[in-house]
Amino acid sequence: MLQTDTLKNGYKIIQDTDRFQFGIDAVLLADFAAGSVHEGDKVIDLGTGTGIIPLLMAGRWKSTEGAFNTPLRGTQATQVTFTGLEVQEASAEMAAQSVALNGLEKQIQIVHGDLKEAGRLFPRHSFNVVTCNPPYMIDEHGRGNALDAKTIARHEVLCTLEDVVAAADTLLATHGKFFMIHRPFRLPEIFSALEKHSMEMKRMRLIQPFAGKEPNMVLIEARKNAKRRLTIEPPLVVRNDNGEYTDEIHRIYGD
Amino acid sequence: MLQTDTLKNGYKIIQDTDRFQFGIDAVLLADFAAGSVHEGDKVIDLGTGTGIIPLLMAGRWKSTEGAFNTPLRGTQATQVTFTGLEVQEASAEMAAQSVALNGLEKQIQIVHGDLKEAGRLFPRHSFNVVTCNPPYMIDEHGRGNALDAKTIARHEVLCTLEDVVAAADTLLATHGKFFMIHRPFRLPEIFSALEKHSMEMKRMRLIQPFAGKEPNMVLIEARKNAKRRLTIEPPLVVRNDNGEYTDEIHRIYGD
Repeated sequence: MLQTDTLKNGYKIIQDTDRFQFGIDAVLLADFAAGSVHEGDKVIDLGTGTGIIPLLMAGRWKSTEGAFNTPLRGTQATQVTFTGLEVQEASAEMAAQSVALNGLEKQIQIVHGDLKEAGRLFPRHSFNVVTCNPPYMIDEHGRGNALDAKTIARHEVLCTLEDVVAAADTLLATHGKFFMIHRPFRLPEIFSALEKHSMEMKRMRLIQPFAGKEPNMVLIEARKNAKRRLTIEPPLVVRNDNGEYTDEIHRIYGD
Repeated sequence: MLQTDTLKNGYKIIQDTDRFQFGIDAVLLADFAAGSVHEGDKVIDLGTGTGIIPLLMAGRWKSTEGAFNTPLRGTQATQVTFTGLEVQEASAEMAAQSVALNGLEKQIQIVHGDLKEAGRLFPRHSFNVVTCNPPYMIDEHGRGNALDAKTIARHEVLCTLEDVVAAADTLLATHGKFFMIHRPFRLPEIFSALEKHSMEMKRMRLIQPFAGKEPNMVLIEARKNAKRRLTIEPPLVVRNDNGEYTDEIHRIYGD
């Protein structure tokens, strides 16, 4: 069933309750990345789904006429523009409808395509920022046979972690930034893939469901061709001991 | 000045207040590693300094006659034995005196030598467990010219992170465990070195000085030839908001 929700920045988003709906991870990633995005940046979100990440981030910057044609970090560069790449046609169409619903066509472009083809779909090294909320689970782990939207969003059926990092490498300009949310148990693979693709993890934040509990998500910021030195931020705690959202989660959700 | 302190397990340790004294990091590492050491294990501590890590860990297992001659994981293997390797002669001598003071010569052997020579000093792949509280700081970062004991313990003057991981690789048997405490900012290098030496980080715990603060230390457990999957434990918080040690720190210190 289709429904339209309103985000904290006032933008509308169309979701299909029978397909994959955005979760807290997308909201946390958009907030984590937004502070590191600057005027003139060209941002691409890999596997954008409903378009939630560009829609949340776009609220911070106004669009300008013909923004997609401004040169990368050129003297004419003005505002931040977003591209959302989505492999599932039905999701890409819905995301494009959400963009149109908010009149954001000048700032957000939805492209239907496979991130494994990133080098053919876009000029190489033409983005400053890549964001991605990829499928977390390795193919074998408890997925059904069905290739439905939820399975594709959660399991590495259509793309692997290596595919995502390789696409970021292909798309990012020198010193470009790559933001991703993932599961902590896969950090060794994440470090390995980043090293292979000349990116350095510069910032990490672990997300704990409660103060004393194991983290179940991790936010990372990597940079291309950067010096090796990592900052680990204090953990982000989702709920207090009473089970209520913490102040920081309320701030991120804009409550 | 020489002084003798008593550890939580009742063992005595000799320290020279003019040289490097053990810190909270050694105590946390010994506690982190102890739970994963099993009967019959052969443990080596690289850069043992005062011998604090073997002395703290030895309390958990009784020594047996001729324990150093028992075969690795053999049918005759009984209790846990420890080797402390120390490059600075004065420190090695003092550590050996502490071992003698506690009558632990059957369980703890102090060897004066350089971890970069580990492959010549010991049979390869002859230990189940390697522990190390290495120098944290990269050579250039704010060290004086003096090659004193404190500088050697804190700065990568006599050995680098790569040397430590290479020594662990040389000394560990298949599926052997490597425990280390380090600074979080060096995690990318740690992951890279582990991968190079066929070890997988299996367990990580970040240490925060206070609940809402950035971690300033990280405990890691890696395993040789292991499957890739990391567990990140809840952070260890050192002090509560009043500046007092938390209950967990009191437990570790045995207060």
